[in-house]
Amino acid sequence: MFRFIFFIFGFAAGMLPVIAQDRAMDVEKDRATVRKIFDESLERGRSYDWLRVLCKDIGPRLSGSAQMYRSMEWGANTLKPLADTIWSQPVMVPHWERGKQEEAAIKGGAKLTICALGGSIATPPKGLTAPVVEVQSLTQLADMGADKLKGKIVFFNRAMDARQLNTFHAYGSCVDQRASGAAEAARFGAVGVLVRSMNLRIDDYPHTGNMRYKDGIPPIPAAAISTADADMLSRELKAKPDLQVRMRMFCRSLEEKPAANIIAEIRGSEKPEEIILVGGHLDSWDLGEGAHDDGAGCVQAMEVLRIFRQLGLRPRRTVRVVLFANEENGVRGGRGYAEYAIKHPVEKHIVAIESDKGGFAPRGFSVDSTRQMVEYMRGWLPVLEEFDLHKIKQGGAGTDITPLRPTGALLIGFEPDTQRYFEVHHAATDTFESVNRRELEMGAAALATLVWLFDQYGLPTRTP
Amino acid sequence: MFRFIFFIFGFAAGMLPVIAQDRAMDVEKDRATVRKIFDESLERGRSYDWLRVLCKDIGPRLSGSAQMYRSMEWGANTLKPLADTIWSQPVMVPHWERGKQEEAAIKGGAKLTICALGGSIATPPKGLTAPVVEVQSLTQLADMGADKLKGKIVFFNRAMDARQLNTFHAYGSCVDQRASGAAEAARFGAVGVLVRSMNLRIDDYPHTGNMRYKDGIPPIPAAAISTADADMLSRELKAKPDLQVRMRMFCRSLEEKPAANIIAEIRGSEKPEEIILVGGHLDSWDLGEGAHDDGAGCVQAMEVLRIFRQLGLRPRRTVRVVLFANEENGVRGGRGYAEYAIKHPVEKHIVAIESDKGGFAPRGFSVDSTRQMVEYMRGWLPVLEEFDLHKIKQGGAGTDITPLRPTGALLIGFEPDTQRYFEVHHAATDTFESVNRRELEMGAAALATLVWLFDQYGLPTRTP
Repeated sequence: MFRFIFFIFGFAAGMLPVIAQDRAMDVEKDRATVRKIFDESLERGRSYDWLRVLCKDIGPRLSGSAQMYRSMEWGANTLKPLADTIWSQPVMVPHWERGKQEEAAIKGGAKLTICALGGSIATPPKGLTAPVVEVQSLTQLADMGADKLKGKIVFFNRAMDARQLNTFHAYGSCVDQRASGAAEAARFGAVGVLVRSMNLRIDDYPHTGNMRYKDGIPPIPAAAISTADADMLSRELKAKPDLQVRMRMFCRSLEEKPAANIIAEIRGSEKPEEIILVGGHLDSWDLGEGAHDDGAGCVQAMEVLRIFRQLGLRPRRTVRVVLFANEENGVRGGRGYAEYAIKHPVEKHIVAIESDKGGFAPRGFSVDSTRQMVEYMRGWLPVLEEFDLHKIKQGGAGTDITPLRPTGALLIGFEPDTQRYFEVHHAATDTFESVNRRELEMGAAALATLVWLFDQYGLPTRTP
Repeated sequence: MFRFIFFIFGFAAGMLPVIAQDRAMDVEKDRATVRKIFDESLERGRSYDWLRVLCKDIGPRLSGSAQMYRSMEWGANTLKPLADTIWSQPVMVPHWERGKQEEAAIKGGAKLTICALGGSIATPPKGLTAPVVEVQSLTQLADMGADKLKGKIVFFNRAMDARQLNTFHAYGSCVDQRASGAAEAARFGAVGVLVRSMNLRIDDYPHTGNMRYKDGIPPIPAAAISTADADMLSRELKAKPDLQVRMRMFCRSLEEKPAANIIAEIRGSEKPEEIILVGGHLDSWDLGEGAHDDGAGCVQAMEVLRIFRQLGLRPRRTVRVVLFANEENGVRGGRGYAEYAIKHPVEKHIVAIESDKGGFAPRGFSVDSTRQMVEYMRGWLPVLEEFDLHKIKQGGAGTDITPLRPTGALLIGFEPDTQRYFEVHHAATDTFESVNRRELEMGAAALATLVWLFDQYGLPTRTP
């Protein structure tokens, strides 16, 4: 860890240290090894079959659900024969249930397809009926004030920006409506919220996701509405501004439950105390099967271990797979793991890599570090580009690994193509069938490749 | 054209000429223009709606079919308001019909899902029944000789290589079975052929495609068999080597028909005689809707013209869209167009770009030229990479534009991600629904971007 911190300081101080790595690069030899990694994943890969079990035999894995427990057991059993060591690290997770299917309709008019947002309270048993006010942003909401909002259902209808090629940026610039909309609307006396689904496509699927209430503000029911029905409701409101919507939701929050991160590793032969972590999160929302989010990331991380084992790639450093227990509604898995890591500095987490942007065709990696670190990794492009991995850029890494920042670990996010991601994200469309076998397998190979490169070359060091 | 030829000679002679372009690059300004191109396609793009009409209202467009004529008319009508000039260039096209749905089964056993290969003759009306010999290659076939093949149905079962990340390479190394299998098998007295579908997935869809007989060898019926049934038949043959298969096909070749390439252009303001061509082919196989192959390429090329018009990007050179009449079974469109181009050297085709690898998320471009030309285009990466276009590499361009080689035009193929392409290629799965709106629109924008860059910068010239 010292090396890494030293490097960062060097850079921060404006000194541009000469960077070096553990050994000189041999492009031809490295390509041959990476070729074997890709061949193994594409010819004999297990990730797709594992994902079928996780999606079809187990199903959606909302924290606290019976399926969550089954997935933990399955993860541990599947990893056991591949690992030198396997253990589970207890964490407490939220337990929220959707209950019966939600209902909504324009009073005297069309039905609306909605789903409760994760963490929402229910409506009264007979439902909630109120006039609707459409807003585009939290700012517009605040400008309206209590006069216009009291007793109303607030309809947040800001759409994801289709022009953003980085669909996660488009998501990021809308998600405040979902996360904070209910708390902010309740501040002004609103009685419920409908939030346009975070979906770049116009269709009939509502997309759930986490929301949070604020202390001192009364909780109000919050639901997502499909993009097609959001457009329809918006049109109807223009024609008839005083229309009322009725919504019924049956969700509830229960006592927290014990769960665990599933951790498996191949011990390093030379520097076992240096950890290269690769992971995804086992939990999912309840509407689909958690296929892209994040069954894909889990089976890809597991496949990294299998590929190392199968090819006899004995790592110099410890390669550790973590299946995080809870990301969607609390990040309890990632936080719990980071707490452990910070308390055990004898283990140096040198790199942590997460796959949580879907099981789509790989593009490259997003590096949560300095431009210089990006340049260091771009030095591997002569190998990576042979395998259609072209994109090494600065950016976020992943929700589960971000809490590891205080350890000094280099945080990296796997970057697949994400154009289709927000058509399935948190919705009933996130099924096994939406994942393409080859794209998933190439992603697993891309992760194994990056782990292998870091194992071979380490982090950049300053030359004397 | 002279400039271009000079450049190539210079390179071939080992002299590395200093390359230059029409004007110095202004990365920030160019990014702003390309941003507008992408915004236009993603926010107000027409390609997806056009593709819906082409796939759903018109449908599959096999050469000589009524739908082919409708698609030509639709293409011309749709392009008319976007172009300075529009015309059609007559070519004759093959006319082959599938007729009634094919049937096949193991005698006394399971049904087999097959489809006639394009150009095949029919079986006798009551069908063809014969023992089956499985082979993996034309070489293995030749080694067997007439003794083992006479009176048999030859079952070509070499699978596409899953390890090939370039799925077109995997296709290229199998397609000889489909194209020449029947002629080679008939040489040794075989009475029919079944060819494993060129599909990387195991499923129930047979994939058609062109095949050719050889003069002096009797034609025999040739069909594709689904990958799932190919695996099944192979297993059955191991258990029961003397099994017989019965197949019935009703296809026929008719008289050639007149068709036409649809050509539309915006005339260049400074160098109207220099042509930048962008195109796809209107015809398709009959089993799906010709969505990825090549409805996508057609609507993307059309969208290039619309984007230029809409944004007021008055090109210096002539931007020409060609919807080629016939590619699948004869390349009559591309050959006819090249004949015209070669006869009219007053028009200099400086660049020809084809989109015929599906409407998937763009990766970049494949350049059918020298490494130096690739390096010249890689000089544009500071602009292109902002839009997730990372891949500029040497490779094939496209079947329709390859006949233009004698004109000296630089030939370029649009490179989308192709991992899913061979799941839909030439099969009933190639429907409008298999195309993602954003991926298609990004492809159209990528094409418009490259056309614009060539219009701005031209081809490299040797500095004095």
